[in-house]
Amino acid sequence: MAKAHVIVRLKTEVLDPQGDAVRRALERLGFEGVKGVRIGKLIEVELDDAHAADLKPRLEKMADAMLANPVTEDFEVVID
Amino acid sequence: MAKAHVIVRLKTEVLDPQGDAVRRALERLGFEGVKGVRIGKLIEVELDDAHAADLKPRLEKMADAMLANPVTEDFEVVID
Repeated sequence: MAKAHVIVRLKTEVLDPQGDAVRRALERLGFEGVKGVRIGKLIEVELDDAHAADLKPRLEKMADAMLANPVTEDFEVVID
Repeated sequence: MAKAHVIVRLKTEVLDPQGDAVRRALERLGFEGVKGVRIGKLIEVELDDAHAADLKPRLEKMADAMLANPVTEDFEVVID
C-alpha cells in the first residue's frame, strides 16, 4: 500500500474567518500572545501497489481536479 | 514571531464519511487504485515573541483544550 498526503491551505490573501474564530476562542480561554490562526486540510490517501508509481504527479492531478479549490487554496503533495 | 502547527486526525477507529465521499468522488473522476482517504485538519498558529518559550507544551495545551476533540481525534504538535 502506498501512502501520501495532500496539505491544502487557504491562499495567504484569502481571509480565514474560521481561523479568526479559533484565535478569539483561544484568547477567551486565557491563551495569550496568539497573533494568528489559519486552518487548512490534511488529506491522507492510500493507493494500492498497482497504482503506486508516479505517486506525486498522480496526487497532484487529484488535488488539482478535486481536493483543492485552485481559486482560494494552494496545495502541497507529500509522499509518506 | 513564532510559528507552529497542530495536525488533527480522526482516531483510526473512527469512521470518516467525508473521506469516504472523497474516495468515491475520485473514483468517479477516473482515479484508480485509491483504497482509502482520511481527512484531518492542519491548524497553523502564530505567537508573538513574548510567548515563544515552551512553544510545544503551550500548543499541546491549546490542542487539548480546544483544537482537537479528545474523544474522536488525535493531535500532533510540530514547531515550524
